Amino acid sequence: MSIEDYIRDIQDFPKRGVVFKDITPLLGDPIAVNLCLDVLLEKVGDKKIDKVVGIESRGFFFGMLLAQKLNVGFVPIRKPGKLPFETFKEPYSLEYGMDVLEIHEDAIQKGERVLIHDDVLATGGTARAACNLVKKCGGEIVQCNFIMQIDFLRGNEKLKSYEVASVLNY
Amino acid sequence: MSIEDYIRDIQDFPKRGVVFKDITPLLGDPIAVNLCLDVLLEKVGDKKIDKVVGIESRGFFFGMLLAQKLNVGFVPIRKPGKLPFETFKEPYSLEYGMDVLEIHEDAIQKGERVLIHDDVLATGGTARAACNLVKKCGGEIVQCNFIMQIDFLRGNEKLKSYEVASVLNY
Repeated sequence: MSIEDYIRDIQDFPKRGVVFKDITPLLGDPIAVNLCLDVLLEKVGDKKIDKVVGIESRGFFFGMLLAQKLNVGFVPIRKPGKLPFETFKEPYSLEYGMDVLEIHEDAIQKGERVLIHDDVLATGGTARAACNLVKKCGGEIVQCNFIMQIDFLRGNEKLKSYEVASVLNY
Repeated sequence: MSIEDYIRDIQDFPKRGVVFKDITPLLGDPIAVNLCLDVLLEKVGDKKIDKVVGIESRGFFFGMLLAQKLNVGFVPIRKPGKLPFETFKEPYSLEYGMDVLEIHEDAIQKGERVLIHDDVLATGGTARAACNLVKKCGGEIVQCNFIMQIDFLRGNEKLKSYEVASVLNY
């Protein structure tokens, strides 16, 4: 069994010319989920982690599982206006224009060791914004991990100061 | 320790006059997460479940944990335009106007026994739309469970044909 078999290519989503990597077949199979989770945990190894941060919303799936397995708290990073308490905000570039990500100001304590998780590392814009938010809280980024990494988009160039790990490379 | 201690009231969110129940303190504490998960699993009991459905996006957190503990697949129900494959769509009422939820057409097989999860049962509009989507796929709804239920909004009247269970009642 290969995790790759559970990632479905969708042509022209969300727009023409883009091949979207759909993880819903993976989520739908508990054996594949556990296998993927085990590989992510292997990437973390014996590093000490105090909080897992998941990026809205596909980073919530395995982010939550990682937090539970590591026996630490989970922190969501969300789109603007979704988090109800006081937030730090961080803008990031989209292909056209900008968007913003937010984190609760009290979500991470100064000096806490943080694992950031998302499903895909593409251009790295959202992941870098997430790193900046964790630093605004005073957290230390131990690793950014992903189910997959789209190599030709060179997202890890935006994450040069951090350890990056992915289950699959495309 | 009480799960209730990890739910934070936010006044006037998302708008004046509303008290929002913030679950991020709960997510941030692994002991509280496990306690809440155990109570949700107790509500499920020994019912046979084939799939867990979580409603975007706060239903993804415990939905994913429930699926893993029950050793079954997880299916996300999402806002329009987020799911990349063919979808069934279901409109539901908001306070002003309508919105739509979607599920992948192939997410649930005919006759599969489904647990639906979301964080809050309020007016029941989204939960009922989720039930309708599961039925469109041919699934059978075994239970709808929630971290909390806001009793005065009478959401369970919209879910009369289904078993409803919540960890907390307000």
